Amino acid sequence: MARLVQCVPNFSEGRNKETIEKIVEEIRKVDEVKLLDYSMDKDHNRTVVTFVGEPEKVILAAFNACKVAADLIDMRYHSGGHPRMGATDVIPLIPISDVTMEECVEYSIQLGKRIGEELNIPVFLYERSARVKERENLADIRKGQYEGMAEKLKQKEWEPDFGPKNLNEKAGVTAVGARPPLIAFNVNLGTDNLEIAKKIATVVRARTGGFTYCKAIGLEIKERGIVQVSMNMVDYTKTSLFRVFDTIEREARRYGVNVIGSEIIGLVPMQALVDVADYYLRLENFDSSQILEKRIFE
Amino acid sequence: MARLVQCVPNFSEGRNKETIEKIVEEIRKVDEVKLLDYSMDKDHNRTVVTFVGEPEKVILAAFNACKVAADLIDMRYHSGGHPRMGATDVIPLIPISDVTMEECVEYSIQLGKRIGEELNIPVFLYERSARVKERENLADIRKGQYEGMAEKLKQKEWEPDFGPKNLNEKAGVTAVGARPPLIAFNVNLGTDNLEIAKKIATVVRARTGGFTYCKAIGLEIKERGIVQVSMNMVDYTKTSLFRVFDTIEREARRYGVNVIGSEIIGLVPMQALVDVADYYLRLENFDSSQILEKRIFE
Repeated sequence: MARLVQCVPNFSEGRNKETIEKIVEEIRKVDEVKLLDYSMDKDHNRTVVTFVGEPEKVILAAFNACKVAADLIDMRYHSGGHPRMGATDVIPLIPISDVTMEECVEYSIQLGKRIGEELNIPVFLYERSARVKERENLADIRKGQYEGMAEKLKQKEWEPDFGPKNLNEKAGVTAVGARPPLIAFNVNLGTDNLEIAKKIATVVRARTGGFTYCKAIGLEIKERGIVQVSMNMVDYTKTSLFRVFDTIEREARRYGVNVIGSEIIGLVPMQALVDVADYYLRLENFDSSQILEKRIFE
Repeated sequence: MARLVQCVPNFSEGRNKETIEKIVEEIRKVDEVKLLDYSMDKDHNRTVVTFVGEPEKVILAAFNACKVAADLIDMRYHSGGHPRMGATDVIPLIPISDVTMEECVEYSIQLGKRIGEELNIPVFLYERSARVKERENLADIRKGQYEGMAEKLKQKEWEPDFGPKNLNEKAGVTAVGARPPLIAFNVNLGTDNLEIAKKIATVVRARTGGFTYCKAIGLEIKERGIVQVSMNMVDYTKTSLFRVFDTIEREARRYGVNVIGSEIIGLVPMQALVDVADYYLRLENFDSSQILEKRIFE
């Protein structure tokens, strides 16, 4: 397959379709970049765009979209249900095929530098691109949100990685960083007892002693009369779907509860599913270059 | 993804590299057809070539290769360990992506007709392309091999589907047909007792009452001191890998034997592995369009 990077920028506009179309158009018009999806959320007043392509093309498209967002979105008048700090709030770069995480970090640095210098927007490098531990977590960077950023940027420990040291009042602040693909993975339990889902979430998630790259909460699915362990798998190469699934199943059994199914919401990299098949079939020496589709597009 | 058909022609030459290179060159030179593999077998005196592309391009490449094979290979002087009846012995067409089996049958008819009429070679349609049940199985068509074909073609029930009614003495006879992808799938057992592998093969294979699209034998893997259920999965969309795997595991347990691993030999369509993941994770409503790589190349 070709060298592929996925980019999932979040823009602080989810109501004005015209604005979003102009932003998305910047991505569409870069040759060989493929727009996969964009979805406007009115309550959040936020739009998530997904596109892929060769890394150089992807960071060009991201820069152009960020430029138009800075022109068209004014953070001074923005409100919505989702935490946010900039017109282009965050730009994650995700290695998909034949690109390493380290290369993605390099690309995020190029992109962040350009946004900082040419668009005059303070930029933080986050996740795998973070230069200090305090900037790995986007929530820590974004804490205080747009309204608190003018003050926050004055603190020495929150000096941006690129761009001006003061807030860009119109465009706010942008975070750029490389991260593994995130998989939204939910496991459904055959009970309406929310406590059980919550207890199992506690067992599997990193924060409470579970798997390092798993975030989990327990939820009720009222219309089906069941509960769910709802997860974000933030690095399937290190914390795999099957291991978490098996653990949930084992824990559920303690309570006499069955796993009745699971769901993958949105996109999933092929390798994450191949890893599952590999594990359950106990494949020996399987190489993903044996997958026909991989060979065709290599 | 683009419309993709795989083609795996077998040529009756496995020793003369120059001849094979000339045949393969015909495939290479068709634009947008991708040659994935070719492997010469000296003992069998036979070469298997694998290539993929859009169906129209694929049948053009197959025709051109068949033409050169008819020029360069003389069946009157051919010997080798594998049953064979023609210079181009068999041309399977395999739907991979966005092409139905029915469409592949149509393409095999177009290809077979051209080989029969333009190259003057008797052609049988086999597998899913067969017009009568007796021609579904390649082994039935090929029975008697090249040496018996002159006589066999004289029988009314073995009148070819296309081409001359008499043997092409130099090029022999060719079978063309659409079939599902074949997956070579072996399951290894933690015992050196060959009888157990043989008994389990009997349980899972179609011929002795097992799964319709599974062929299986029991084998010894001497260097590892184990035995193996060695299978050809001839239609994974109907007989899936996981169901056969689970059955083997359950049967092995009867004898106090563990499944220690499995192997996929050669290429495998992505969907066959996705089906495995889907089953073990009990995925609800998963659609393969959620696979990132599928979306990129669609």
